[in-house]
Amino acid sequence: MPEPAERPRRSCCPVACTLDLLGDRWTLLVVRDLFRGVDQYSAFTRSPEGIATNILADRLDELVANGIAERFVPTGQKRARYRLTESGRELEPLLRAVADWGLKHIPGTEARLTPQPN
Amino acid sequence: MPEPAERPRRSCCPVACTLDLLGDRWTLLVVRDLFRGVDQYSAFTRSPEGIATNILADRLDELVANGIAERFVPTGQKRARYRLTESGRELEPLLRAVADWGLKHIPGTEARLTPQPN
Repeated sequence: MPEPAERPRRSCCPVACTLDLLGDRWTLLVVRDLFRGVDQYSAFTRSPEGIATNILADRLDELVANGIAERFVPTGQKRARYRLTESGRELEPLLRAVADWGLKHIPGTEARLTPQPN
Repeated sequence: MPEPAERPRRSCCPVACTLDLLGDRWTLLVVRDLFRGVDQYSAFTRSPEGIATNILADRLDELVANGIAERFVPTGQKRARYRLTESGRELEPLLRAVADWGLKHIPGTEARLTPQPN
């Protein structure tokens, strides 16, 4: 799997640098699903937002390349799974702040805290 | 000024809906600058990331259309200025969580909490 090309930093601001890794419409949704226990490629595509498989593959590769998620093959199985690394798990306050702001300010949003079935 | 076209929601998840408003590489940098007291169009372009004027104009319009920022003309002046609305100011925990994660996990990032000169 090719490493994603390293993009030059825009500044040393931690907001800018974090957005260079996570600032798009899809990456944090993949992280959200990893927090929910989704770990198989096909399961991510069943989330309600309907992520396209090429976008999913790209975002999983980027998350792995950036040390936020890791890919592993469970013993005795053939298919790879994904899980958050420690730095990925530390995105929880960020994800919660994103969800909290949406719940308060965007009418019709609903929290779904239970894991999705795989 | 034309209203931005309303994009259909991807789901009722507050993470997805918030990313529909803020999920790109630039919008939260404009919000960061508004928190720092940057309020004039030309001043945003002086931030170290070097936002392009067409991107800046688009993101300010979107922030205003989405009720996160407002445009006003101070009495006796000609040039418009921008400031956060109440819902914009409530992005502070989200912005702080983004900055905190970056400071901890991305080497070489530096907090700059003082307002920039206009």
